[in-house]
Amino acid sequence: MPFGENKNASWYGKDILSVKQFDRSDLEYIFGVAHEMAEMVRRIGTFDLLKGKILANLFYEPSTRTSASFTAAMERLGGSVIPINEVRYSSVAKGESLPDTVRTLEAYADVIVLRHPEVGAAALAAKYARKPIINAGDGVGEHPTQALLDLFTIQEELGRVDHITVTMLGDLKYGRTVHSLARLLSLYNVKLNYVSPDILRMPREIITEIQATGTPQFEYTSLEPVLAETDVLYVTRVQKERFEDPEQYESVKDAYVITPEIMQAAKKTMILMHPLPRVGEIAMEVDQDPRAAYFRQVEYGLYVRMALLAMVLGKA
Amino acid sequence: MPFGENKNASWYGKDILSVKQFDRSDLEYIFGVAHEMAEMVRRIGTFDLLKGKILANLFYEPSTRTSASFTAAMERLGGSVIPINEVRYSSVAKGESLPDTVRTLEAYADVIVLRHPEVGAAALAAKYARKPIINAGDGVGEHPTQALLDLFTIQEELGRVDHITVTMLGDLKYGRTVHSLARLLSLYNVKLNYVSPDILRMPREIITEIQATGTPQFEYTSLEPVLAETDVLYVTRVQKERFEDPEQYESVKDAYVITPEIMQAAKKTMILMHPLPRVGEIAMEVDQDPRAAYFRQVEYGLYVRMALLAMVLGKA
Amino acid sequence: MPFGENKNASWYGKDILSVKQFDRSDLEYIFGVAHEMAEMVRRIGTFDLLKGKILANLFYEPSTRTSASFTAAMERLGGSVIPINEVRYSSVAKGESLPDTVRTLEAYADVIVLRHPEVGAAALAAKYARKPIINAGDGVGEHPTQALLDLFTIQEELGRVDHITVTMLGDLKYGRTVHSLARLLSLYNVKLNYVSPDILRMPREIITEIQATGTPQFEYTSLEPVLAETDVLYVTRVQKERFEDPEQYESVKDAYVITPEIMQAAKKTMILMHPLPRVGEIAMEVDQDPRAAYFRQVEYGLYVRMALLAMVLGKA
Repeated sequence: MPFGENKNASWYGKDILSVKQFDRSDLEYIFGVAHEMAEMVRRIGTFDLLKGKILANLFYEPSTRTSASFTAAMERLGGSVIPINEVRYSSVAKGESLPDTVRTLEAYADVIVLRHPEVGAAALAAKYARKPIINAGDGVGEHPTQALLDLFTIQEELGRVDHITVTMLGDLKYGRTVHSLARLLSLYNVKLNYVSPDILRMPREIITEIQATGTPQFEYTSLEPVLAETDVLYVTRVQKERFEDPEQYESVKDAYVITPEIMQAAKKTMILMHPLPRVGEIAMEVDQDPRAAYFRQVEYGLYVRMALLAMVLGKA
Repeated sequence: MPFGENKNASWYGKDILSVKQFDRSDLEYIFGVAHEMAEMVRRIGTFDLLKGKILANLFYEPSTRTSASFTAAMERLGGSVIPINEVRYSSVAKGESLPDTVRTLEAYADVIVLRHPEVGAAALAAKYARKPIINAGDGVGEHPTQALLDLFTIQEELGRVDHITVTMLGDLKYGRTVHSLARLLSLYNVKLNYVSPDILRMPREIITEIQATGTPQFEYTSLEPVLAETDVLYVTRVQKERFEDPEQYESVKDAYVITPEIMQAAKKTMILMHPLPRVGEIAMEVDQDPRAAYFRQVEYGLYVRMALLAMVLGKA
Repeated sequence: MPFGENKNASWYGKDILSVKQFDRSDLEYIFGVAHEMAEMVRRIGTFDLLKGKILANLFYEPSTRTSASFTAAMERLGGSVIPINEVRYSSVAKGESLPDTVRTLEAYADVIVLRHPEVGAAALAAKYARKPIINAGDGVGEHPTQALLDLFTIQEELGRVDHITVTMLGDLKYGRTVHSLARLLSLYNVKLNYVSPDILRMPREIITEIQATGTPQFEYTSLEPVLAETDVLYVTRVQKERFEDPEQYESVKDAYVITPEIMQAAKKTMILMHPLPRVGEIAMEVDQDPRAAYFRQVEYGLYVRMALLAMVLGKA
C-alpha cells in the first residue's frame, strides 16, 4: 500500500516502491529516524529494536552492495535475514510467478526486500503481498532507497537541503540514480546543474517534470563554469560502451574525472558524492580529501535502510 | 539414529530421514508441537527456544523454497543458520565424500539439514554424523518434511485426518510428494482417489504397499466423478516433457487445471492443496477462494519444521 | 595494523594477515583464549560475547569449509554475519577495486574476513580498511588461521608443542598449509621431518628460513624410517596433476597413503592430522582410530577463529 493520501497514517505495513510516493514531510520523518539510527549505531553499535523480525532479502540479480546494506541494517536492529541470492532466473526457469514467490516468502518473513531486473516488479510484488515490500531496484525503473540515502547524505553533511547548488556530473542519461535524486531535490529550494557529454544529457522528460516544480536547472558540457558555486558535486560514471565512436569517448572522458586539482578549485564546504562503484572517475588521491563523502554516503545508506525497516515494521 | 524401536525414547538427537519412520503417535506428537509453534508465532512472532543453536543448511542443489523455510524456522526460534549453497558439486569436484563433509559441519553446527540430488544421501550422512540430520530431499527418494507439512495442513484445516476423502490429481507417477503423502495418509482412516492421465498413474508398488494397510484406493482419469465427495484436493503439475507425443499432452492438460468453475462444483468445506511452485495448473482467480489452502500450506510448513528442529535439539 | 612492535598493545583493531606477525607469546595468548572458547562451547554451546557485532564474510572464491567455520565462530559468540559469496569476479567485472570494496563493507560490519585468489590481497585490504581484516587465504600466499588451528590442535592434543617430532607427508612443495605450519613450529623446540616424492620436496627457501632458527630438519622419500619417532603425522594430498609422467605418480602414490597397518607401527600417542578435504590419502578405516585427529582439528579451528574474532573486536 503506497503512501500519500493520509498524511497521519502510520508507516506500519507500507511498501517503499518509488521516490514519487514521498513528500517533504515524509522525507523529514525518514531522515529524523535515520539520524537517530546513526546516533545509536555510533553509541552502542546494535540494538534489539527488530529482534524477532525476519527480512527476506530476495535478489533476482546480484547486487552485493545493496544486499549487504539491507542485511547489515536488519542485523544492526537485532533482526534476522533469509538471504535469497540463488534465485537469478532459476525460479523463472521453473516457471513460478513473482506473485507466488512473494506470497510464499511472506509466510516466513515479516518484510521483503526485492531486487529484480524488470521495471514494475516491486509494484507487482506489493500488489500481491500482505507484508511490506521494499524496492531495492527494479531494472531501469527505480531504486528509491539509493535516492533517499543520497538526499540524507546531503542533509547530514551540509545540515540542510534548501538553498544549495547541486551539480550532477557524468552520464545523466542512463543513471536512474541521478534521475531519482533530481526528483527528490525538486521538493526543496535548490539549483540544479547538469554537466554531461552531449549524448548523455539528462532526459527531456525529467527536466520537464522538474521544471513544473519551479526548480532552476542548467545544462553544461563542462564542469568548469559551475564548480565554484557547487555545494554538492554528484559524480557518475561515463561508460565507454555508451559511445558509438571510441574517439569521441577518448575526447571527453578526462573532462569528467575528479582530480585533486579540481577539488582545489571547489568550495571548502563542498561535498563530493558518488553512488559507487567507481572506476576511475574519481582519482584515488581525492579519497584523503575531507570533502570526499562517498564512503560516508555508504554509511548513511545503512541508517536510511535501518529507518525504513523499523518504520514499515511499526517500530520507529 | 532412526525412530521406531523405543516409542518412549526422546526425540533428542534423532534423524528425520523418511516418512516410513513415523507411526500415528509420532505424527500426533509432531503435530501437537507444530500447533504450539503456530500459536506462538501468531502471538509473539519469534521466541528464543533455540537461542545459541546453529543449523547447517547444506544444499547440494538449489531449492530456494525449502532452504528459506528451514532458515526461517531456525530464526523464528532464535537460532542461527550457516547457509551452504555454494556446494553444488564443487566439493564433489574437489573429491570430498559426503561423510567427510557432514563430519566437518557437525564440528560447527548442532543440526544439519541436507538437500542432495542422490537417493540415500540423507541416510548415508546420518550413518556418519553424531549430530541429527534432517532430510530436505534426496533426489527421487524422500522429502519427509514436505509430506509432514501436507498432512499437518489437512489436520489444521479440517480439524481431523480420519474419515476424509483425499483426491490426488495430476502427475502421480513422478511426484515424490504424493507418494510420501499417500503413505502417511494410509496410517489414518481415509479414502484415496488418484486422478491422472493414463501414463502418469500412481506407481503399482505404492498402490500395493498401501493396499496392505486396508486403505481404499480408486483410480480415475478425470476429476469429475470424485469431485463432489472430495475433502482434500491435492494438485500436482502435469509436465509437458513427460509426454512423448505433444498432441497427447494437449489433449489431456486442460482436464487437470483447477478453475473457479471446478471449485463451484466442489464441497464448501473442501481444501485445495498444491506443493508449489505451480505453473498454470491452478488458475490465479482461484487464489481468492477461501478453500485455496496452498499459501497457508507454506505457512504450516514453517511450523512443522520449527517443531522438528526443536524436537531433535531436545527443546520441544 | 600488524602485530609485533609493542608486545603490550591490545589486540583490539589488529589485522590477522600472516603467521609471520606472531611470536611465541602471541601464540600462547591466542591459544589461551581459544582454549577458553572450547571450554565455553562444550559447557554452554554459545554465548553473547560478540552480540551486536557484525562480520562481513567476503569470499572472492568459494571455500565452503572456511566460510562455514568463520560463520559458526561468529554465531557461537552471538554475533551476526553478512555472507558475501556472490563476489567471485563480478565486482572485478564491474571494475571495483578491493580497497573500495572493503571501505564499503566496513561501513556495515565491525570486522572483515577476506578470501581472495591473489597473493597480497589481505595486506592490500588492511592498508585501506579502518576495521580489522582477517586473512582467510590469499592465493598461494598465506592462510594464517589454518596454521594457527594446526598448531592449536597439537597443543591441545599433546598438551605441548615443545620436544616433539613432527613429520609432514605428501606434497610439501605446493601446500601453503605445511609451509605456514613449519614456520610456526620453528618458534618451538621441535624436530621436523619432511617426507615427499622427490619432485614435491619442501621448497629450498623455506628450509633455509627455518634453518636460521636452529630447528633440526630432515628430508625423506619414505615414511618408514621416521614413523616410529613421530609425535605428529601431518598428511597432505599428493595430486596426480603434479606429475608429468603418470607412471611416476602410480609408482609413488601408495607410499603416501595412511592405512591401519601404518597406524599399527606408529606411536600409541601419535596424532594424525590432515587439513581436509582428503581424497584417499587416509583410508576411511583409520577414522575409527583414536589417534585420527583430523575431525577434531576442524573443531579446534572453530575455537581459534572464535578467539581471533573476540580479540580483534576487543572482547577477549
